[in-house]
Amino acid sequence: MESLRIDTPSVVVDLDVAEANISRFQTYCDSHGIKVRPHIKTHKMPALANFQIGRGAIGITCQKISEAEAMIADGGIDDVLITYNILGEAKLARLRALSEKVKLSVVADNLTVVRGLSGAFATATSPLPVLVECDTGAARCGVSDPEEAATLAAEIDALPGLTFRGLMTYPPAGAASKVTAWLTQTKNLIAAKGLSVEVVSSGGSPDMWHAHEMPLATEYRIGTYAYNDRSLVERGTCSWEDCALTVLATVVSVPSEKRAIIDAGSKVLTSDLLGLNGHGHILGRDDLVIDQLSEEHGRIVSEGPIGLEVGDQVQIVPNHACVVANMLNRVELVRGSKHLGSTPVAARGQVW
Amino acid sequence: MESLRIDTPSVVVDLDVAEANISRFQTYCDSHGIKVRPHIKTHKMPALANFQIGRGAIGITCQKISEAEAMIADGGIDDVLITYNILGEAKLARLRALSEKVKLSVVADNLTVVRGLSGAFATATSPLPVLVECDTGAARCGVSDPEEAATLAAEIDALPGLTFRGLMTYPPAGAASKVTAWLTQTKNLIAAKGLSVEVVSSGGSPDMWHAHEMPLATEYRIGTYAYNDRSLVERGTCSWEDCALTVLATVVSVPSEKRAIIDAGSKVLTSDLLGLNGHGHILGRDDLVIDQLSEEHGRIVSEGPIGLEVGDQVQIVPNHACVVANMLNRVELVRGSKHLGSTPVAARGQVW
Repeated sequence: MESLRIDTPSVVVDLDVAEANISRFQTYCDSHGIKVRPHIKTHKMPALANFQIGRGAIGITCQKISEAEAMIADGGIDDVLITYNILGEAKLARLRALSEKVKLSVVADNLTVVRGLSGAFATATSPLPVLVECDTGAARCGVSDPEEAATLAAEIDALPGLTFRGLMTYPPAGAASKVTAWLTQTKNLIAAKGLSVEVVSSGGSPDMWHAHEMPLATEYRIGTYAYNDRSLVERGTCSWEDCALTVLATVVSVPSEKRAIIDAGSKVLTSDLLGLNGHGHILGRDDLVIDQLSEEHGRIVSEGPIGLEVGDQVQIVPNHACVVANMLNRVELVRGSKHLGSTPVAARGQVW
Repeated sequence: MESLRIDTPSVVVDLDVAEANISRFQTYCDSHGIKVRPHIKTHKMPALANFQIGRGAIGITCQKISEAEAMIADGGIDDVLITYNILGEAKLARLRALSEKVKLSVVADNLTVVRGLSGAFATATSPLPVLVECDTGAARCGVSDPEEAATLAAEIDALPGLTFRGLMTYPPAGAASKVTAWLTQTKNLIAAKGLSVEVVSSGGSPDMWHAHEMPLATEYRIGTYAYNDRSLVERGTCSWEDCALTVLATVVSVPSEKRAIIDAGSKVLTSDLLGLNGHGHILGRDDLVIDQLSEEHGRIVSEGPIGLEVGDQVQIVPNHACVVANMLNRVELVRGSKHLGSTPVAARGQVW
């Protein structure tokens, strides 16, 4: 990577690796009849979203309206699910405008959100499809039990401007049978109300190779898989060679035998740990630990002599790719050892 | 804050509070004869840097060349210290260009960096002032002992294009006497070589009200003091009322009696803990804890009923203001309850 003469600290994306990651999972899903709806929060770049669609994804997932606006700007994407409770006049007006440009659906887990959506779409030419978000164990958003889900589904169906489309969950890892039971019961309760569950949307990169264990799900949302990261390597989901996003950093100081300082700190690597020790993996140097980050400095320590000199470059697989991709205005694109130039991370830094 | 109709999640800066913070510390330093050189990495906005200069700061501190470039763009700032080991052709060329626009100085802690600086400035019309960075206990960058500092000072002085200006340290908190001893010994060793130490630059917000306990320092670098944050409140450096930067968030879900979800996650609050539990302090609600962040969700938990409804806004003092100010393209400016509009965070998102 040194011969690329990329200034540091930079976020570097190897498109060969990212495209292989995207293709590999699409092939797996194709073989199991699972539709893929990639979450673009990881890369936030229209070119990669378009590649995902080109490989067979049915549409994209976004977490923010601004992400959707950025992704559809060049016209290559026509199906967007926003997996977020959307509230407030300003956001609802933008959501309504977005719905006129693209096939849009959203999620909701409470009546306040549903009523707001209904108010904004009551005069729309076609109703907004809404999925009920279900908490199947992750304890974040989502209705808490199947009865509540069925009640909310009926409320969505009854309100003007909306149509009930199905169920969405961000399941806890390794809980396919429990999640399936939860969703099956919910589906039956909803069917008993005369409504049909067209979509069951599940997802998550850690469990990606187990997606087929939950055949109830009609689509799979997945983000990190495009880049992968240290958290997924440590879970055994992928290998270091599958990590498309790295941070390139330069050693700026070697103050003692067992300590070196690099120019990548928390303003590029972030402080996300995801349960890991240390702030990323230095490729080719299993013996080193990035034990501390300041804003623009990373501290590397070693048990023995550190074997780094001022001016050396290191390539770091971060703990969590999705947050690192969000830190700089531009990322550097490479294919193997060929530097293609930099490109803006279109959807980053926006409020909503 | 609700009446301001600011969309969420937003980073909100109360200029009344920030200006009072800046003025209060300037007054303290004036009364002790300490020069102030604020670190603009916290706010990254020229308007606040200009306010700091207007109140009496002698110049600014930057951590990156791009920060300096952004701060001097409107012509209000003419003295910049970059407290970073600067390496590599691209950065050195930009540093040289910067030196032609502003009174510039830098730091170095090793000969590789010093030789690079010398090469870039050998043909400059005036030499680049270089301070030797000293590790007085923080174990990050810096030469490890006074002898090494004196040796590097002499090497700087001997090289073309450079002039030795003094010493710089980022001291560990609460160690004024140890740091003073370190720097005094170094100053004496350098004097014995016939060189003069014109500047001794110290700094840090946690110890800001103890700056006078180290009279050896000729200037004080300080960043977080402009905004303050939860880490400084918890250390007793300031109070909640002194926190100029907050994150405004909306409750988007209340899935159970003791859990609520807000629209501020790690992509605005960041995962910086600075040794604290939880991810920020919700003003007026000491009983609540933000116990978990996803990228765009924050989870609030409580011991008793949570007392929040979907649509409620909460105002959060983050653990670490400097990293939060770096997350969004724009921050919202207010004075008390008056919303002034948003402004770009000029120096964020740049590689270097």
